[in-house]
Amino acid sequence: MTIKELGGEFAMLKRLVRQYPGDPRLIVGVGDDCAVLDYSDDKYLLVTTDMMVENDHFSRKWQTPYQIGMKLMESNVSDIVCKAGTPVFAFLSMCLTKAVTVEFMDEFYEGLYASAKRHGVMLAGGDTTHGDIFVFNLALTGEVKKESLRLRRGAKVGNALCVTGELGGSTAGLKLLLRGKEGFLKDHLEPVCRTAAEGELISRYATATIDVSDGLGSEVTHICEESGVGARIDHAAIPLSPATVASGRMLGLDPYDFALYGGEDYEIVFTMPGEKISELRKEFDDFTVVGEILDPGEGIFISRGNKKLPVQKGYDHFA
Amino acid sequence: MTIKELGGEFAMLKRLVRQYPGDPRLIVGVGDDCAVLDYSDDKYLLVTTDMMVENDHFSRKWQTPYQIGMKLMESNVSDIVCKAGTPVFAFLSMCLTKAVTVEFMDEFYEGLYASAKRHGVMLAGGDTTHGDIFVFNLALTGEVKKESLRLRRGAKVGNALCVTGELGGSTAGLKLLLRGKEGFLKDHLEPVCRTAAEGELISRYATATIDVSDGLGSEVTHICEESGVGARIDHAAIPLSPATVASGRMLGLDPYDFALYGGEDYEIVFTMPGEKISELRKEFDDFTVVGEILDPGEGIFISRGNKKLPVQKGYDHFA
Repeated sequence: MTIKELGGEFAMLKRLVRQYPGDPRLIVGVGDDCAVLDYSDDKYLLVTTDMMVENDHFSRKWQTPYQIGMKLMESNVSDIVCKAGTPVFAFLSMCLTKAVTVEFMDEFYEGLYASAKRHGVMLAGGDTTHGDIFVFNLALTGEVKKESLRLRRGAKVGNALCVTGELGGSTAGLKLLLRGKEGFLKDHLEPVCRTAAEGELISRYATATIDVSDGLGSEVTHICEESGVGARIDHAAIPLSPATVASGRMLGLDPYDFALYGGEDYEIVFTMPGEKISELRKEFDDFTVVGEILDPGEGIFISRGNKKLPVQKGYDHFA
Repeated sequence: MTIKELGGEFAMLKRLVRQYPGDPRLIVGVGDDCAVLDYSDDKYLLVTTDMMVENDHFSRKWQTPYQIGMKLMESNVSDIVCKAGTPVFAFLSMCLTKAVTVEFMDEFYEGLYASAKRHGVMLAGGDTTHGDIFVFNLALTGEVKKESLRLRRGAKVGNALCVTGELGGSTAGLKLLLRGKEGFLKDHLEPVCRTAAEGELISRYATATIDVSDGLGSEVTHICEESGVGARIDHAAIPLSPATVASGRMLGLDPYDFALYGGEDYEIVFTMPGEKISELRKEFDDFTVVGEILDPGEGIFISRGNKKLPVQKGYDHFA
């Protein structure tokens, strides 16, 4: 039986991953952006891991080694800061081809270290091996104050559904590259995630959080499933940059779909009581209200004009 | 410039990896079997990561998915227990091919869980993606009592050089498989590392420890370099199983070379005061004295009959 026949990546993980709720040292296991582990009196330890495979997550055709190293770090840091954590130690595993040059590795590490420096991360270990393609894996630890930790679960009916920054830019850039068109590529080639300070600020108001790895549609679905709620996404409210809108026009594609189903924007989706929004805006203003958390019976849908559109499934490596 | 021209894998890492000795939370960084991190009053946190690439670390031609999963866990646990730690949480990243079957994954996880259960490890997170080859990465955390931690550094002139179990079995099996010969394959297909209890026992006497990933020659060299000492390896004392000797004969190869330069035996090399050996033997007897730690001026060599042989370099992915 193929994984596709089973129902895709998430069906497979559901089948295979055994949770052991008995161990008190594991606060949150598989199924959120990070694992949350017992640590000290006032802090939890966070651990996340992300694998980047050549020709899937990056291409040496259009990404420089610097950009590959940078993206590897940013995509992992994003998982920590969206839980209100501060990233600390990174562990890098690399599968390199025999043809790799020292110049490639110099640049790759430059990008990795530039991002690590921005987020205060220290490289503390790793493993190097070789194979037919480039594969990079980063495991990253972080710390979070116990009272600051926010998870995918926790969204409450009536909460505002919010997202930081602008969405769809990474996917717009990728589509331009795939079709050999010129345009705004920076969001795809050099994505920058939110900082620990921003994640911590958001957590003071948020009831649930997740980072945008797989598109707004997929992330809102995760929050709803884990929180046992429904949600309305207001199509017109989804924040797009002028560059993303222009790229969509050039490609003849709907840029809102880049935001909903693209991913790799490394922004933070969060839910919070609507009455506190103006209070948060005094401290942090770079976010948009894109909908509302609803009763679970209402399901998850996109409100576009008078229509209720279903949320398509997010990216699945095996669907 | 190729990595080979630079001098290989270790020269590359030396060039690229920046140590930050300033952060007090990092007790030991890159350059030992695990990173050692600040944790609690009486314990350190250990973190290790190991990547296994298809057709390099395993082959689907002769390893079952169960055996691949098992080897991934054992190779990581070995890094924790050789530092006298107890493994705790594992984080699995997988690059799977689109053709992967559910049956393959079921079996892979069975092997992984069987090994995890043996060592008390809990799977706490991961990442799943796809590519042209199978790549598995495990990041593993562990805990160690501060007074029990042993490192590669710490060997003292005059110490006995010891190794647990028997060496060379994994390489003997691999060579048989590569040449299409029948013989004893279990050491290669189903390697089992030492337990946390054994690692802890050894640490009570050991001055330095390392696990056997790359062969006795390479591991002794690491201990010597990190401890600033020399060493004599007594060729005749290297422990080989009868099956490994028989495999060597069948292959027309020196089975001692499997032990010295093969690797993946997941035994523990350790140094300790010679006068305490009989005391350790009362509690743990499955080890052999294979040499002695010498003054750094004497270098690292193999004593075979009347000859002093140099220790060849260990396996290098890019040499």
